[in-house]
Amino acid sequence: MDMPLSATAVATQPNQLTASEAAALLRSGQLSCEELLRSCLKRIEQRDPLVRAWLHLDVDMAIRNARELDKLPMKSPLHGLPWGVKDVFDTRDMPTTQNSPIYTGMQVGRDAACVAVVRHSGSLILGKTDTVEFASQGRKALTRNPFNPAHTPGGSSSGSGAAVGDFQVPLAFGTQTGGSHIRPASFNGIYGFKPTWGAVSREGLRMSSLTLDTVGWYGRSVDDLILVAEAFRLAKIGDVETVSPRGLRVGLCRSPVWDNIEPAGEAALLLAAKRLEDAGAIVEDLELPSPCDGLAAAHADIGYSEGGVSFLPEYVGAGDLLAPGLRTRVLNERGVTPEELLAAYTLADRCRPIFDGLFGPSLDVVLTPSAPGEAPEGLHTTGNAVFNSNWTLLHVPCVGIPVGRGPKGLPVGVTLVGPRCSDRRLLAIAKGLAPVIDADPQSALRELC
Amino acid sequence: MDMPLSATAVATQPNQLTASEAAALLRSGQLSCEELLRSCLKRIEQRDPLVRAWLHLDVDMAIRNARELDKLPMKSPLHGLPWGVKDVFDTRDMPTTQNSPIYTGMQVGRDAACVAVVRHSGSLILGKTDTVEFASQGRKALTRNPFNPAHTPGGSSSGSGAAVGDFQVPLAFGTQTGGSHIRPASFNGIYGFKPTWGAVSREGLRMSSLTLDTVGWYGRSVDDLILVAEAFRLAKIGDVETVSPRGLRVGLCRSPVWDNIEPAGEAALLLAAKRLEDAGAIVEDLELPSPCDGLAAAHADIGYSEGGVSFLPEYVGAGDLLAPGLRTRVLNERGVTPEELLAAYTLADRCRPIFDGLFGPSLDVVLTPSAPGEAPEGLHTTGNAVFNSNWTLLHVPCVGIPVGRGPKGLPVGVTLVGPRCSDRRLLAIAKGLAPVIDADPQSALRELC
Repeated sequence: MDMPLSATAVATQPNQLTASEAAALLRSGQLSCEELLRSCLKRIEQRDPLVRAWLHLDVDMAIRNARELDKLPMKSPLHGLPWGVKDVFDTRDMPTTQNSPIYTGMQVGRDAACVAVVRHSGSLILGKTDTVEFASQGRKALTRNPFNPAHTPGGSSSGSGAAVGDFQVPLAFGTQTGGSHIRPASFNGIYGFKPTWGAVSREGLRMSSLTLDTVGWYGRSVDDLILVAEAFRLAKIGDVETVSPRGLRVGLCRSPVWDNIEPAGEAALLLAAKRLEDAGAIVEDLELPSPCDGLAAAHADIGYSEGGVSFLPEYVGAGDLLAPGLRTRVLNERGVTPEELLAAYTLADRCRPIFDGLFGPSLDVVLTPSAPGEAPEGLHTTGNAVFNSNWTLLHVPCVGIPVGRGPKGLPVGVTLVGPRCSDRRLLAIAKGLAPVIDADPQSALRELC
Repeated sequence: MDMPLSATAVATQPNQLTASEAAALLRSGQLSCEELLRSCLKRIEQRDPLVRAWLHLDVDMAIRNARELDKLPMKSPLHGLPWGVKDVFDTRDMPTTQNSPIYTGMQVGRDAACVAVVRHSGSLILGKTDTVEFASQGRKALTRNPFNPAHTPGGSSSGSGAAVGDFQVPLAFGTQTGGSHIRPASFNGIYGFKPTWGAVSREGLRMSSLTLDTVGWYGRSVDDLILVAEAFRLAKIGDVETVSPRGLRVGLCRSPVWDNIEPAGEAALLLAAKRLEDAGAIVEDLELPSPCDGLAAAHADIGYSEGGVSFLPEYVGAGDLLAPGLRTRVLNERGVTPEELLAAYTLADRCRPIFDGLFGPSLDVVLTPSAPGEAPEGLHTTGNAVFNSNWTLLHVPCVGIPVGRGPKGLPVGVTLVGPRCSDRRLLAIAKGLAPVIDADPQSALRELC
């Protein structure tokens, strides 16, 4: 099969450019929005019968919109960049199905907040990407891993992760409730950013869990992530100065769920740590304070109970069309009591300031796994969110960065984590560390496994 | 002017029934949905030119829908009951304008989650009620207080509060970010419930603050509030057993913002406390632990910063059509730093378990003001949210209960508060205490002022 280029390879086609590279060419007039779009469309035409990243794509509309954008003055650095949008975000000119039979063909007539922001900034909304039903549970995406179609691209942001990983589109929106955003970044060899909870509006995004759902985006470099973060004015982002790895305090956090690690995941984490040490960073083991041991269980209780809240309308109105796993949440078949839910909220309340408080003179950033290992085989699973869900519940910003390839030739990444409301600082750190961590995308982690 | 009936007066027209009274007659076949609707419509025709509660009301569609509902078997105890819906909730068959010029005539084509739940339960969605722009800041509702049109009905749930208070509709949805739900309950002499944050889906509700926005509903009795709570399966509500006032431990909480109280607000609080004591409750002063002193400032910082997040799409896309006060939030003209925002989140994290932990053998429920006093004169203000915003930030359930009339003849209420996830217990307590607190709706608080 046609293997994707690495993010650092020299681009020969516009679709191979990172978003920030393309943005520079668009700005200087060396590339038009239509040229960039047509290059993406060509890639999609070639590859998407295999990858199946898209649920909806109106080629004619996209070309019309690109031509309109080419006539306009640049609205922002995002002007002319095509986006994939996970099909749980409302789009005013495309169906929003949530990959649920309940919403087949649903036209909402209004953009989700984050879609509106990038559209008003001149971006091209190319199409809707496949997702696990409601970004939660039920129907899986039909999307395949672009590195090996026998494997999952991860989920629930399956189509967004694969489309960016396969060079079909430079940028895409995903969401994370457990590990739906950062895990596919790892599985598809791309960069992903999950901001601090609340820093980007979730309006118009299908709700699964009020406490957990978070918008994120994918790109193929930290610069891409920053380009978008600037549009969202994250933590008053202005110039994002690069932080040098030298002397930076990195906490190597295997996390309380380390038992779930696989050899490729461990190898990626240790290789990233070694590369950082070699570049002068001070890497020390970080054990989370003991209350954090309960976060995974608290995440499960909150996600389950709030899922029952979120899917009540479909339970009442759509009957059997609601996936059985979601019906059981409404019925609370697991029997999560109000006391247990309150205990879960209370633990999260307690752990958030504890985690934020770890940062300071002795800790700049946390380095932790993005996934147990490579993407599992088969499309019946999207992999395990266990290494992501604690960070989601803590509401902290996370950057997913590729490290190398596991024994099966599939990508494996790691995650950088900062305290809440530190999005600007975390992206600056990621910009400094990414060239070190992602030094050789063809790194064979199997030699370390 | 035509003064509204008290909630305990004998109803002579269907529109004067409480929701639970009407539900019983609908169930027994003594009342049809169309009869109830026509009675509400008659009241609206008579009164709404003065009260102006509604932004959108399609009489013909409502009658058609009522006739359809009359043909169907009862879907739930809510079957046939008309609802007012604050115009920040999406409705599939009516415009959703958010009272913003940006969204004039906006048709979304999908119901907000809570609207879908009551609609699927057989309720009649009568129309959209007026609101402060985006339930936040900007254009005020044109709604007037049904007790005196020279006064505000409160806000931002202005139309919903006034429509229920004026017997135009038995039930209505509101929202609370600061004090937008419980304060209008007080100003309009009605019952209001704000559930635990997260217990009712906010999907399809215009977002202003992710941390603060909460769905609520109005009725004219605690039974009405419980009727709706059952549809939302709050904290697994089954039978709601009434709690006797005798021996109940009530914490009389003047709260850290007591300086803002007015004579009528103080009189209502003390009269409610006295009535409870006379009925055998043990009422003791409750001072919130000192960290809670900072909640009002934390609420302000969070609401301001998250408002900047929420209104970014309109800032980018709609320019001057966005109200100046909301533009300044996007621009962060107040200069709330990420550090200050994090400190506000951290204080809320810390105070929530502290407040929840107050409840136990020595405290069953908190009694606290709903507003400084009577509704202010004029429509340029909706009153002060200072007595509500701490509870909103604490995510705790609140029930607003009428007490009597202030010196200007306007209603004043009080609020009962419980710990998070105790919705079922709090409503049971409210059911037991409301007949005592709301013993004489014509009580002249002026004698106590």
